[in-house]
Amino acid sequence: MSQNQLQTAEPNLSKIDSQDLVGLSAKSIREPYLLFLGDGGDIKTATGVHYWRPDICIGQMRLSGQAADLGLEELGIAAAANAGVGTLIVGVATIGGHVPETWIDVLAEALEAGLDLASGLHLKLQDIPRLREIARANGRRIHDVRHPTQDFAIPSFEFRPGKRLLTVGTDCAVGKMFTSLAIEREMKAQGLKTTFRATGQTGILIEGSGISIDAVVSDFISSATAWLAPANDPDHWDIIEGQGSLFHPAFAGVTLGLVHGSQPDLMVLCGNPSLTHLRYFENFKQPSLEQCIERYEEAARLTNPNAKIAGISLNTSQMGEVEAHRIIEETRNRLGMPCFDPVRTGVSEFVSKVFFN
Amino acid sequence: MSQNQLQTAEPNLSKIDSQDLVGLSAKSIREPYLLFLGDGGDIKTATGVHYWRPDICIGQMRLSGQAADLGLEELGIAAAANAGVGTLIVGVATIGGHVPETWIDVLAEALEAGLDLASGLHLKLQDIPRLREIARANGRRIHDVRHPTQDFAIPSFEFRPGKRLLTVGTDCAVGKMFTSLAIEREMKAQGLKTTFRATGQTGILIEGSGISIDAVVSDFISSATAWLAPANDPDHWDIIEGQGSLFHPAFAGVTLGLVHGSQPDLMVLCGNPSLTHLRYFENFKQPSLEQCIERYEEAARLTNPNAKIAGISLNTSQMGEVEAHRIIEETRNRLGMPCFDPVRTGVSEFVSKVFFN
Repeated sequence: MSQNQLQTAEPNLSKIDSQDLVGLSAKSIREPYLLFLGDGGDIKTATGVHYWRPDICIGQMRLSGQAADLGLEELGIAAAANAGVGTLIVGVATIGGHVPETWIDVLAEALEAGLDLASGLHLKLQDIPRLREIARANGRRIHDVRHPTQDFAIPSFEFRPGKRLLTVGTDCAVGKMFTSLAIEREMKAQGLKTTFRATGQTGILIEGSGISIDAVVSDFISSATAWLAPANDPDHWDIIEGQGSLFHPAFAGVTLGLVHGSQPDLMVLCGNPSLTHLRYFENFKQPSLEQCIERYEEAARLTNPNAKIAGISLNTSQMGEVEAHRIIEETRNRLGMPCFDPVRTGVSEFVSKVFFN
Repeated sequence: MSQNQLQTAEPNLSKIDSQDLVGLSAKSIREPYLLFLGDGGDIKTATGVHYWRPDICIGQMRLSGQAADLGLEELGIAAAANAGVGTLIVGVATIGGHVPETWIDVLAEALEAGLDLASGLHLKLQDIPRLREIARANGRRIHDVRHPTQDFAIPSFEFRPGKRLLTVGTDCAVGKMFTSLAIEREMKAQGLKTTFRATGQTGILIEGSGISIDAVVSDFISSATAWLAPANDPDHWDIIEGQGSLFHPAFAGVTLGLVHGSQPDLMVLCGNPSLTHLRYFENFKQPSLEQCIERYEEAARLTNPNAKIAGISLNTSQMGEVEAHRIIEETRNRLGMPCFDPVRTGVSEFVSKVFFN
């Protein structure tokens, strides 16, 4: 915001710490993965990584029978090292974000056995002195993917070549990451050049690179997004994972910065027709899809005058088959654009229609 | 953005570092001030502090004749300490943000003489080992006001008592801080209960407290703003310093978070009729005042359904007297609301009209 920043808006990457840079197109998290499931708690990170990258998840590690089970081979640290695991992924959230002493023993053992660590926890593993020292002594890397450390230049936000699609939503947690990954996979299957650009911790662990955009200093939301999805071949599509919602009282700033920095050609609007109010914010109604289309297009056109919503992705998981298909059909007709549930209907029709017409 | 954060959306102030917390209503920067002007460069920070708080600026210190001159008494460190100075304010920006060795000698001497330091530079003075150690050894504080270190709880964004006025703008650097301070001063003069809430480094040095909002992690823009302007007496007004613009490709996310977190009852829209394009972003036009009114009111009503633009503050400094008055009059008539230039016309008519009708 300050004039000083603007006047020195030139590449300033001096603070990059190679220890924990998870950057750009290079996959910097070593594959394959051992998924660490701890001793209970929410494993949506592990579930997401396993769902999208089963090829690189070669084992799981549970510290007790309380832990969730992904059905992967149980591997201890020594066995994982022997099997060639590159990185232990902390795939479970802890209550209050603290890291139990029993975990630290295991994580230390992993570093000593030659594995890297990657975590999306709020607490940085690098801030645990014992782990930091063992990593240094053994030349291992700790990826605290929720904590970007690089500085970002402020770009001009002029037109840049390459095409970009951004997922946006009515709310948090309505399927933006899932939709992005489903579209990227289907576009690849249909022969298109495309890259998934991760903006949250699970996405980063799936892709092996990205920026946890909600952890970037607020002055650089747009600029970090532009850096994440840079100029590219004219026929290449970046599929950018959206965050939050323009209608969310706590997180709309992140969303607006993502929209402006993406300069998206297309957006896919994600919603969940079973929800009436914002999750955890009962005083705030879910906005209508029509409101969203209007506001997202209006916002995006600041940096890309041709930006438009190209389709609607509905999470209908709380509905029966008949009701789900009815609402998908009704939404498609009402809004005059493709509508799908990436799980229930897939996205192949959407991709064919939007990218081959 | 993550569910984990939301689920643990309870006060989490564990990371507060009392060393550099510049917080809430308590004035935590010790008065009076010695304004350090270095040896040349942009002194808008010093100028702002001196303009608004001449009562607490009891001296200046220049390292060479190249330095700007505020006309204050020249004080060396020893004389400043004898005169009872509480804090040396680094009031000048450096090229590229580095701190010259000659400065460090002076800053170290100040700490040894019992002064605190406060700086709005990008580079943290606390990161200079020599200064950090001398501060610790002498029990002195270093306020790097651009770098908030506290964590913020995510509030419910329900109605909270107390009234709030936020300044918003067509662009960066169109007079939001000046307008806020002018309104706060005039409201006090007219007997109203009011507090200026600073969101940028100069404002923080003027007020002695605040949060540099563009340096907050992006997930917490709204929440930090809500924390800065908390529940208050029903007849108390917080005057919140705005940042950026909803129409700025790089910084609109910060602005939107500020708008939502402020839950403003009133907004004052700041513009500069001499500008045609955004500063430093030649491909982006200045939005019209009409566009701004529509978008800011629409955005603010997410968290305060009664939010409205109450007046227009024009920076007419690049115009002659006749033209300036003509455009102020024309804008007032066209938009049907008070319009003023806080320097040229003052804000007393605005305050009388808005708060006593």
